[in-house]
Amino acid sequence: MHDLVIKHGQLILHSGPVLADLAIDGDRIAAIGRQLNAARAIDAAGCYVIPGGVDCHVHLQMRLGGLTTADTFETGTVAAACGGTTTVVDFTDPQPEQPLMHALRERRAEADGRVAVDYGLHMTIPAWHASAEARLHDVPDAVAAGCATFKLYQAYDRMQLDDVALLRAMRAVAAAGGSVVLHSETGPLLDHLRAEALAAGRREPVWHERTRPAILEASAVQRALAIAALAGCAFHVFHVGAAEPLAYIAAARTNGQDVTAETCPHYLLLSADQHLSGTDGPLFICAPPLRSPDDQAAAWRALKDGSLDIVSTDHCPWTRSEKRQPSFADVPGGLPGIEARLALVHHFGVNQRDLPLTSWVSSCCAAPARRMGLSRKGALLPGYDADIVIFDPLREKTLASNELNEAADWSPYEGQDVSGWPRAVLLRGAEIVRDETYIGHPGQGRFQHRTFVPAPDPSP
Amino acid sequence: MHDLVIKHGQLILHSGPVLADLAIDGDRIAAIGRQLNAARAIDAAGCYVIPGGVDCHVHLQMRLGGLTTADTFETGTVAAACGGTTTVVDFTDPQPEQPLMHALRERRAEADGRVAVDYGLHMTIPAWHASAEARLHDVPDAVAAGCATFKLYQAYDRMQLDDVALLRAMRAVAAAGGSVVLHSETGPLLDHLRAEALAAGRREPVWHERTRPAILEASAVQRALAIAALAGCAFHVFHVGAAEPLAYIAAARTNGQDVTAETCPHYLLLSADQHLSGTDGPLFICAPPLRSPDDQAAAWRALKDGSLDIVSTDHCPWTRSEKRQPSFADVPGGLPGIEARLALVHHFGVNQRDLPLTSWVSSCCAAPARRMGLSRKGALLPGYDADIVIFDPLREKTLASNELNEAADWSPYEGQDVSGWPRAVLLRGAEIVRDETYIGHPGQGRFQHRTFVPAPDPSP
Amino acid sequence: MHDLVIKHGQLILHSGPVLADLAIDGDRIAAIGRQLNAARAIDAAGCYVIPGGVDCHVHLQMRLGGLTTADTFETGTVAAACGGTTTVVDFTDPQPEQPLMHALRERRAEADGRVAVDYGLHMTIPAWHASAEARLHDVPDAVAAGCATFKLYQAYDRMQLDDVALLRAMRAVAAAGGSVVLHSETGPLLDHLRAEALAAGRREPVWHERTRPAILEASAVQRALAIAALAGCAFHVFHVGAAEPLAYIAAARTNGQDVTAETCPHYLLLSADQHLSGTDGPLFICAPPLRSPDDQAAAWRALKDGSLDIVSTDHCPWTRSEKRQPSFADVPGGLPGIEARLALVHHFGVNQRDLPLTSWVSSCCAAPARRMGLSRKGALLPGYDADIVIFDPLREKTLASNELNEAADWSPYEGQDVSGWPRAVLLRGAEIVRDETYIGHPGQGRFQHRTFVPAPDPSP
Amino acid sequence: MHDLVIKHGQLILHSGPVLADLAIDGDRIAAIGRQLNAARAIDAAGCYVIPGGVDCHVHLQMRLGGLTTADTFETGTVAAACGGTTTVVDFTDPQPEQPLMHALRERRAEADGRVAVDYGLHMTIPAWHASAEARLHDVPDAVAAGCATFKLYQAYDRMQLDDVALLRAMRAVAAAGGSVVLHSETGPLLDHLRAEALAAGRREPVWHERTRPAILEASAVQRALAIAALAGCAFHVFHVGAAEPLAYIAAARTNGQDVTAETCPHYLLLSADQHLSGTDGPLFICAPPLRSPDDQAAAWRALKDGSLDIVSTDHCPWTRSEKRQPSFADVPGGLPGIEARLALVHHFGVNQRDLPLTSWVSSCCAAPARRMGLSRKGALLPGYDADIVIFDPLREKTLASNELNEAADWSPYEGQDVSGWPRAVLLRGAEIVRDETYIGHPGQGRFQHRTFVPAPDPSP
Repeated sequence: MHDLVIKHGQLILHSGPVLADLAIDGDRIAAIGRQLNAARAIDAAGCYVIPGGVDCHVHLQMRLGGLTTADTFETGTVAAACGGTTTVVDFTDPQPEQPLMHALRERRAEADGRVAVDYGLHMTIPAWHASAEARLHDVPDAVAAGCATFKLYQAYDRMQLDDVALLRAMRAVAAAGGSVVLHSETGPLLDHLRAEALAAGRREPVWHERTRPAILEASAVQRALAIAALAGCAFHVFHVGAAEPLAYIAAARTNGQDVTAETCPHYLLLSADQHLSGTDGPLFICAPPLRSPDDQAAAWRALKDGSLDIVSTDHCPWTRSEKRQPSFADVPGGLPGIEARLALVHHFGVNQRDLPLTSWVSSCCAAPARRMGLSRKGALLPGYDADIVIFDPLREKTLASNELNEAADWSPYEGQDVSGWPRAVLLRGAEIVRDETYIGHPGQGRFQHRTFVPAPDPSP
Repeated sequence: MHDLVIKHGQLILHSGPVLADLAIDGDRIAAIGRQLNAARAIDAAGCYVIPGGVDCHVHLQMRLGGLTTADTFETGTVAAACGGTTTVVDFTDPQPEQPLMHALRERRAEADGRVAVDYGLHMTIPAWHASAEARLHDVPDAVAAGCATFKLYQAYDRMQLDDVALLRAMRAVAAAGGSVVLHSETGPLLDHLRAEALAAGRREPVWHERTRPAILEASAVQRALAIAALAGCAFHVFHVGAAEPLAYIAAARTNGQDVTAETCPHYLLLSADQHLSGTDGPLFICAPPLRSPDDQAAAWRALKDGSLDIVSTDHCPWTRSEKRQPSFADVPGGLPGIEARLALVHHFGVNQRDLPLTSWVSSCCAAPARRMGLSRKGALLPGYDADIVIFDPLREKTLASNELNEAADWSPYEGQDVSGWPRAVLLRGAEIVRDETYIGHPGQGRFQHRTFVPAPDPSP
Repeated sequence: MHDLVIKHGQLILHSGPVLADLAIDGDRIAAIGRQLNAARAIDAAGCYVIPGGVDCHVHLQMRLGGLTTADTFETGTVAAACGGTTTVVDFTDPQPEQPLMHALRERRAEADGRVAVDYGLHMTIPAWHASAEARLHDVPDAVAAGCATFKLYQAYDRMQLDDVALLRAMRAVAAAGGSVVLHSETGPLLDHLRAEALAAGRREPVWHERTRPAILEASAVQRALAIAALAGCAFHVFHVGAAEPLAYIAAARTNGQDVTAETCPHYLLLSADQHLSGTDGPLFICAPPLRSPDDQAAAWRALKDGSLDIVSTDHCPWTRSEKRQPSFADVPGGLPGIEARLALVHHFGVNQRDLPLTSWVSSCCAAPARRMGLSRKGALLPGYDADIVIFDPLREKTLASNELNEAADWSPYEGQDVSGWPRAVLLRGAEIVRDETYIGHPGQGRFQHRTFVPAPDPSP
Repeated sequence: MHDLVIKHGQLILHSGPVLADLAIDGDRIAAIGRQLNAARAIDAAGCYVIPGGVDCHVHLQMRLGGLTTADTFETGTVAAACGGTTTVVDFTDPQPEQPLMHALRERRAEADGRVAVDYGLHMTIPAWHASAEARLHDVPDAVAAGCATFKLYQAYDRMQLDDVALLRAMRAVAAAGGSVVLHSETGPLLDHLRAEALAAGRREPVWHERTRPAILEASAVQRALAIAALAGCAFHVFHVGAAEPLAYIAAARTNGQDVTAETCPHYLLLSADQHLSGTDGPLFICAPPLRSPDDQAAAWRALKDGSLDIVSTDHCPWTRSEKRQPSFADVPGGLPGIEARLALVHHFGVNQRDLPLTSWVSSCCAAPARRMGLSRKGALLPGYDADIVIFDPLREKTLASNELNEAADWSPYEGQDVSGWPRAVLLRGAEIVRDETYIGHPGQGRFQHRTFVPAPDPSP
C-alpha cells in the first residue's frame, strides 16, 4: 500500500510512452506498474505523466547595474512550477574580491525559504577570480558545497576570461570533479565591433545582432573546445542558437569530447529579422542575439538528431520600460520565458515538427538533470524524487503576460496559441499545482547538492 | 500482492541501471519499484536484471542441399534459453512454386510444440516469387499471419533478386505494412569472381573472402538503399561486418532513411586473416565473410555510436565433418553461436571496450524486438512479457562446445574465457533456466505474431 | 621566319592569360613569344587566342530505329568549326554480331572525306559483345586502330551491360590500355518505372524525368565506381547533370580513383520544370533528363571546383517533327548544340558566374583532349597541332537556328543573347573559319589515332 | 634572332612537360618554341627547364636577442642561387616605435648591393604598431613601396596581436590592397604551458613540442580564418606542418575563403619523435615544432591534392653552438635549408611519392610568386623575367653542410642522398650558376616591388 498513486496516465519513459500507474511513497517514486494500490489516487487519464522539468539556466532577482530582474525567487519559481518545472539552476555571482563561498552563502540566503521549487546554483568564476591562482582554491569548496558547475564567460567586460584564464579555470574545475557552463562569444571582438557601430551612430536594435556575428560565436566555441580538450574538462555551452557553433559542437561530440549544448525557446521560435526591428525591437535583445530562420531550422534539427541536448530558458526578465532604451547598447539583455518552456517545446516540437515525446522529455527534464548533477531528478524511476508533471496534451491555451505567473509585463510569446499545458505538478510527492493553479507554499523548494561523483544508485 | 518478484537486482532500463525490484503477474511484468510484495521471490542480488534476449537471425533445422543444420528447433532454442535469449526469429523458405502461406504452415508445424523459447518467422521471398506479379499477392497474407518481415537476397543463385525484382518486392512489402530483412552482397559479381578463382585452381578458404570483397557488399547496400528509398520501404541489413557498407548505412540514417543494420559476434571477434587459413579455415566460412581487424574496429565503433543497432547470431550450425570440404566453394556457409551472444557482447563489449550496459541490452534485446515488430518483448516495463534474464556479471566461464547446449561439435569461441553468464531465465513469467540449467519443457515457446501496425499500448 | 603568326592576342594558357604572339610552322604550333616573325600574320588584337575546342561526345548521322540524326558528318562538323570546335569524337556502333573492326571500317568510310574538323571514334561495346568472352578479343585491335575509348551502357535495351558484363568489359579495356566512357543510369529499373508510367496512361514529357530519377543515376554511378575499382579501369562518366552522381564522383576522385565526368550546356542552362512542360516539352527530352535548378547549381559548382572536368554537347539533333511524339516514350532522345558550346560556357560561365578563363578553356579544350587520348590537341604549346580559335569576347550574338550551321530546325537556345563568339578558326594551321564564315572544305578533317600509351613528347 | 636560347630541355609548364626551346631577349623570356634562333645557346638536353624558385619565407641576417642568423644577405642568397632559387622574400622588422617606412629603408640598405638573387620584403606589424590606430597609417605607404604583404603574429611576446589587433591590422591591410602572412599559434596559451613546464623542471627539447600542441595551432588558424572573413582580408599561413590546422585551411578553401598555406621541407621530412631527442635535439627546435609521422603524411597529402600550395624554407640558420642550450626555452628557433629546397621536394616528392612535376614547380616557384605578388616571376612565359633553372634530375648528390653554400655549420639533412640538382641558373637572363658553381656577383639581385593590384599583362 503506497502513499499515492497516479493512475491511467501515459508515462513518458526513456524508452517511450507506457500506459502504467506510478506509485509514490513519501517524497520518492516507489514503483511504476499495474494494479498499484495507494492511500490516495490522482487520475491522469488522457494525460502524459512526465518527470518535473529542469531548467538549468535562469536569472532570478539578478542585479545588473542598478536594476534587478523582474522575478524574485518566489515569483519566478511559482511561474516555473505552474509551467511544469520543478527544479531551476540559478547563479551565484561573486562581487569583486568576494570569496566564492561567502557569495554562495549570501545567494542561498536570498533563495532559501522563498523558492517554490527545488533549485541549484552555478558558481560564476569572474575574471578577477580566474586571473589569480589563489582564488581558484575556492573551487573544491564550491564543489563540496554542492555547486559542481562553474559559469565561465568568454565575453563581457569584467567577466570574460582570456584563453589562459579559461585554461586555468577549466583545469581547476576538472581537478575538483566539477564541470563548466559557458557563455561562448568572442568578447573582445564583439566589444570592438560594438564600439565601431556606436561611433558610426548606429543605435537600432538590429545592430545588436550585426555586432555579434555567428562566426564569432562559432570561433569562441571552437577555442573553448580546444582548451577544454587540453584541460580534460567537461563543459556545457549555454544558449546556442546558430548553425555554425552547433556544427563545431556536433563534430566534437562525434569525436568523443565531453561537451553538451542547450538552446532556448526564443532561438527556436524567434528571429532577428522578425523581432529586432520595429518599436518592440529592444525587447528582444539578448546575447547571443536572435539569429536567422536558417539558424532556427538548424537548432530544431540538432534537437531532433540529439547533437543538442537541452532546452533551457535563460529566463532573464526585464520590464518593458527597462528594455526600451534609445541605443541597443544600453538595453539590459535577456528575455522572460520560465513558465512556457515545456508547453512551447511540446507545441512547436512534438505537435508541429514530429519531435518524439522522448526528445521533449529528454531535453526539458532528463538531460539537464543528468548534465547538471541532479542525480535524483529527471526520470520516472523507483527511488527518484517524486517530481511529477501531469500534462494535458489537448489543453488549448493562449499565452498572455497578464495571465502568466511571470512578473515581467510582457512576454515574447504574447498571444501565441499552444496545445498542451500542465494540469498538475508534484514536488517531491507534494502537489504544488492542481488544476493549473499553484497550491503550494513558497519555501517548499530545497537547495540541491549537485555532484558528478558517481553516486550510489538513487534507490535505497 | 504480485505473483512473483525479482528482488535486489540491478535493472538495466533504457535510461540506465536502477536498483529496484521487478514484479510479475501471470505472464507479464506488473511493476518495477520498491517494496513490491509477491507470493514468491527470486533473489537477484549482485546481478543484472535484463529483458530476455531477442535473436532476430537464426537458422534452425534448415535444409541446404542434402544437409540440415545441426540444431533442431528443440536443441537450438534450449541453447538460446541457456544463453539468455527468449525469442528467436527463424525463416520460412518456400520451395519453388510453393505458396508462401503453405510454406508457413509447414514451417510452423516443425517448430510449434518443440521450441523452448518464443519464436517468429521471417518470410523468404525467393527469386521465383518476386519475378511473377501474382506471387506477391501472398505478402499481405503473410503480414496478416504475423510474418511482417520478408527476407530478400541480393546474392545466391535462385534466391537473388535483380534490381527490378527488389523494387517490386520492397513495394509489395511496404504496401502491406511489412518490412524487409536483407542479405546484401552483389551476387552475380561474386559468382563471377568465384568461378574465376575456381577456374584458376583456387580452393583455399581465404579465396572465399577474396571473391566476396567488401566493396561489393557496400555497392549492394548502396543500391538497396536507393531502391528502398524509391519503394518507401523500411529495411534491415543482415550481418554487416565491414567498414564500407557500415559507412553507407550510417550516412543514410543521418539523412533520415528508415534503415537498420546488425552485426554478429563473429564479425566483431574473428577475422579472415586469423581464421580462414590453417586446417580449420573451412570451419569459419560464412557469407558475408569474416573481414579484417580494421573492419572489426569499425563494427565496434558503429555499435557504440548507435549507427549499428543490433547484434544477432546468424546461427547456422554445421558439424566439423560437414564443413571440412576440399574447396571453399563446397563448404556450407555459417557458424554456430546462438548460446553465447549475450555473454560475448557483455565480455568483449561492456567489460573490455566500455560499451555502455544500455547499449549491450539495446543491441541484444530491445532494438531487435522493436525492429522485428515484437511489441511486447525487449523491455522491463509494465505490461511487457515477463521474459527476464538474471545475468551474473562476475561468473567466470570457459566456452567449450561439449558444455554448450548447441548441437554442433565445435564452436568458433572454443576455449574462450568470459566473465558474465545468465544465472536464471524466465519466459513469460515461467522459470526455464535456473542455476544455469534448463528446467523448462520444449514446446513452451510460442509463435509470435509480429506487426508494425501501431499497436495499442502493451499495457492492458 | 615562321609560316604564320597570330599577333596581339591574349593567349589563354594553362597558367592564365598572356599577351604574346603565336607562331605556326606547317600544321604545328612553333612558338609562343614576342617578336616572332612570319611570312604571314593574323591580327588577334582584342581577342582571346585559345586551342581549338574538343567535343568528346557527338552523334552525327547516327541511325536510331528508322531515323538518322539531322546532322551529317559534313554539316555537323562545319557547325562545330564555326563554333570553335576543331575535334569531335563520335561513335562506332557495331550491329548485332558485327565484328568491332568491321564496324569501325564502315564508320570511318562515312566520315573520311566529309568531315570539316578532325575526329575520333569511341568504340561502343554493346551487350551482345560483352556477354561472350570471344568478342572482347577485338578490344586490343580497336586500341591499336586508335579507338582507345570504349562506350559502355548501364541502360538501354540491347546495349546495357549487367554488372558482370561491365566488369568483364572494363577488365578487357584496362588490359588493352584503353579507357571507358559510360552512360550511367540504372537501365532495368528505369525500364520498369517507364512501363509502369505508360501502363498508368502517363504520356507527358515530365514523366520522362520522373521515370529516370537522379537517385538511380547516382546508384548506377556508384556501382560503376565499384566495378571499375575492381577492374583497375579508368573511366569517364558521360552527361552528368544531377547533384547526387556528382557527389559520388567527387568523393571517388578525392580517394584517388581515375574517373572523370562531363556535363553538357543543356544541363547547365535548362531544367525539367521549365522545359519539359508545354507544347515544346518533347523537344527537350534527352537521357539522363534535364534536372532541377539545384542540380544546375551543383553542376556549375563542380565545374568551378574542378570535380567536373569537361563540357561536351552530346549533340544529337532531331527535327521538330521527329521529336513531337504523343508519348514521351516514343520521342528520340537528344538535343542539338554542337555549335554554341564555347560561346555558352563563355557567356554563362566566364561572363556571368566568374568561371575563370582557364576553366573555360580547360573544360572545353584541354581536359577533353587529354582525357580522350588526343595527345597533340587542346593546348597552345610548341609541337601541338595548330588548332586555334580567335575568340572575340565582345561580339554580341543572338542564337537562332536559322542562322546556325546546325541542320536541325530548332535550337534549345533559340533567341538567347550571348557575348563572345569565334571570329576565326584554324585547323592544323589552315584557316577554316574567317570572319565567322566557314571557308574550309569538307574532308579537311582527319581521323585521330587516340592512345593512352605514354607517348613521346609531341614536340619533334 | 634572340639573345640566348636554352635548347633541348624539357620545359615544365603549368600544363606539364614539353620538349621545346626557350628564347631570351635581355632580361625577359622572349619565346618558347621550336627552331628558335639566338646569338648564344645553352644545351639543356636531359634536364628539366623550370622557372627560378621563389622562397617566400627566409630570415637572413636577422637579429634576435644578441644574435644574428648565420647567413648574411650575401651568403644566404648565394646558397639560394646554387639551389635554384632566384627570388627570396625576407622581412622588415620595425623596432619599437620605429615608423615602418624608416625600418624598410634600413632593411633595404642592408640587402641592396649584397644580394645574389632578387628579393622582396614582408613588412612585419608588431603588437606596438597594431595597438594604436595611428601606426596603421603606414600600411598604404608600405604597399606603395612594394611591400604588399604584412607579417602578423598570433604568438611571441611583443609580436603577438590579440584578436582585436588582428582584426584591425587585417582590415588595414585589406583596405590598402595588401595581404597578410601569418604566424599562427595561440601565443598566450603556449607561453603558459611553457612556463608550467619550466616550473616543473622540464628542459629537454621534446618539451618544446609538448608545450606547443597541434590543437592550439589549429585553434589559432581557426580564429584567424574567422577574423580574416570579417575583415575581408586574404592571408597566407606560414609553416604549417600538422594535420589539424591543414584540415581547417582545406575546409575554408572549399568554402571559397581566400587563404593559402605553406609547409617547409623540415615538416615534410623530419619528426619530433625522431629529431627532438638525443644530443642533437636542440638543433631541431623551430616553431611551430616538428610534428609526428602522421602529420608528415597529412602535409604530403595536402601538397598533392593542392590544399597546400607552397613549400618555403623558413630558412633561419643558427650555428651548432648557438643552438645547444641547456633548456629548450633558450634555444633560438629555426633551421637552415635555403639551398636544398628544390632538390628535396624533387627527390622525396617527385621521385619517391609520385608528386607530379607540375606540383613540384607550382609549390616551389609558380604559386609563391603568384601569392606574393611577384607578377613577373614563377612561369616560363613570354614577358616574364628570364629566371631559369636547368635542373638535372639524374645528378646524384649527398647533402653535406661543408659543401653547401649555407653559412651554418650543420644541416638538418646532413648525409642525405638525393637525385636531382640544379646544373645552371639564370637571373633575369644572366647566368649566375654554371656547372653547379656560383659565377654571379653579389649585388646583382634587385628589390622586387610586389603588388596585388591587377597589373597589366607582363608582356610588353
